[in-house]
Amino acid sequence: MSSKIKIAGTIAEMKSLRREMRGSVGFVPTMGYLHEGHISLTRQARKENDHVVASIFVNPTQFGPKEDFKTYPRDIDRDLALLKDTTDVVFIPENAEEMYPPKYNTWVIVDGITEPLEGQCRPGHFKGVSTVVAKLFNIVEPTRAYFGQKDAQQAKVLQKMVKDLNMNLDVIVCATIREPDGLAMSSRNTYLNPHERKAATVLSQSLMLAQNLWQKGERDADIIRGKMTELINKEPLAKIEYVSIADDETLHELNTIDTPALVSLAVKVGKTRLIDNITLK
Amino acid sequence: MSSKIKIAGTIAEMKSLRREMRGSVGFVPTMGYLHEGHISLTRQARKENDHVVASIFVNPTQFGPKEDFKTYPRDIDRDLALLKDTTDVVFIPENAEEMYPPKYNTWVIVDGITEPLEGQCRPGHFKGVSTVVAKLFNIVEPTRAYFGQKDAQQAKVLQKMVKDLNMNLDVIVCATIREPDGLAMSSRNTYLNPHERKAATVLSQSLMLAQNLWQKGERDADIIRGKMTELINKEPLAKIEYVSIADDETLHELNTIDTPALVSLAVKVGKTRLIDNITLK
Repeated sequence: MSSKIKIAGTIAEMKSLRREMRGSVGFVPTMGYLHEGHISLTRQARKENDHVVASIFVNPTQFGPKEDFKTYPRDIDRDLALLKDTTDVVFIPENAEEMYPPKYNTWVIVDGITEPLEGQCRPGHFKGVSTVVAKLFNIVEPTRAYFGQKDAQQAKVLQKMVKDLNMNLDVIVCATIREPDGLAMSSRNTYLNPHERKAATVLSQSLMLAQNLWQKGERDADIIRGKMTELINKEPLAKIEYVSIADDETLHELNTIDTPALVSLAVKVGKTRLIDNITLK
Repeated sequence: MSSKIKIAGTIAEMKSLRREMRGSVGFVPTMGYLHEGHISLTRQARKENDHVVASIFVNPTQFGPKEDFKTYPRDIDRDLALLKDTTDVVFIPENAEEMYPPKYNTWVIVDGITEPLEGQCRPGHFKGVSTVVAKLFNIVEPTRAYFGQKDAQQAKVLQKMVKDLNMNLDVIVCATIREPDGLAMSSRNTYLNPHERKAATVLSQSLMLAQNLWQKGERDADIIRGKMTELINKEPLAKIEYVSIADDETLHELNTIDTPALVSLAVKVGKTRLIDNITLK
């Protein structure tokens, strides 16, 4: 571990720093505005690798035209302070053109698993995610890459991409980190005003409800979805986009929970779109 | 250079052999049924690298449903004999499932440059090519990969993919190798009966005509296309799919040849579809 964090602002600089590294490299791609969830990833990367690289890039191609690309929170100085104890190199493309120069025209597309849930609500989102992560993997050439379970479908899409394209790394999925009241950590939580912040606990509460019902033996997915929906609808600031109980591998919706299941949801709290999930198994 | 060629039948075997290699690796991906064109690539790879890897895989995803995937010529023993003086390792996936296992679902798509010419005649062709080559690049991790100018658009698509996705290798394009009468070498030439074989020289003859006109100062692309078309139409066994004079970088059709230009054509001779090209610059 180097005592001072190094910053690469261009792909060439990042590749050059990478060539100096011997041994294993752990990589944590982020969009910045880091929180304890991200740092749990760099900390795990630190434990498991000789070098740790993080990236900070608000990737325009994964945002829809009506989404929050322009307002996505940014604070690089704060991010660097948070990374300094775990991370050797931070790749911060100095502008979007560094990653998407004029005439950029290549896309990595994972079919199937990208279609439901986030893929249905955010058309083109996963095309942007898989493409930028494929590029980052080629630039950083990590031994292991770390993603949060909070974005469960994203992690599955990237695992599928790595497997299908025979990429030479392991994708490691780390537990969701939560605030004391259960809210999953997210850079977008900063959008919430105090009333919304309180209302936002309804996401994790509905997941705990699902887990309780399942632990008591309930296997009818519709009943659990129904009770989750009922709970969320009691919160006036919350508006459901989806409440899903799906096969944890295929993400096909389940009628009966007879296989490991991903319970996931997207809810708008005020104008802020939040997601969360748990696995039942 | 090892004295005996090694064969990898699985991705795991190929990756294992790759891990043993130190220094640079030249890679020549092929669909087998090799000819002097392929061997010119492995020979150049030999000159420029410490190790040479070739692959032989008739890639189903780059063939259309009505194309010649099933009848594509295959002769591995002959291929190995041709490779033995230049090549250290040959990756021959033992079946298509090795490359495309059940539930395979990830695609690399290059937009723009894939749309005209071969992309228009063979929908989905380049999606299959870019995907399989991305996979092969991840499996073989070459320093340099070698492709023939004969498939000019393919070479451009792969150069664009490597650039856009920040892959860590150079794509090197080598001159088309021709039979004494000018016919560009192709595994598909074996489909031609003696009459068709003779008729097939009309492709290179029309390219030579284009070059002569250009050398004499003709810059009107329509005039050159017209004279090429006229020449080919005199051959009763030949049926034009396209005759193109395009910007060598963008592949947009030109009116006036005021920039480096790719003159390319696809012609059916009997039932056999042949392509060829030259560059004017």
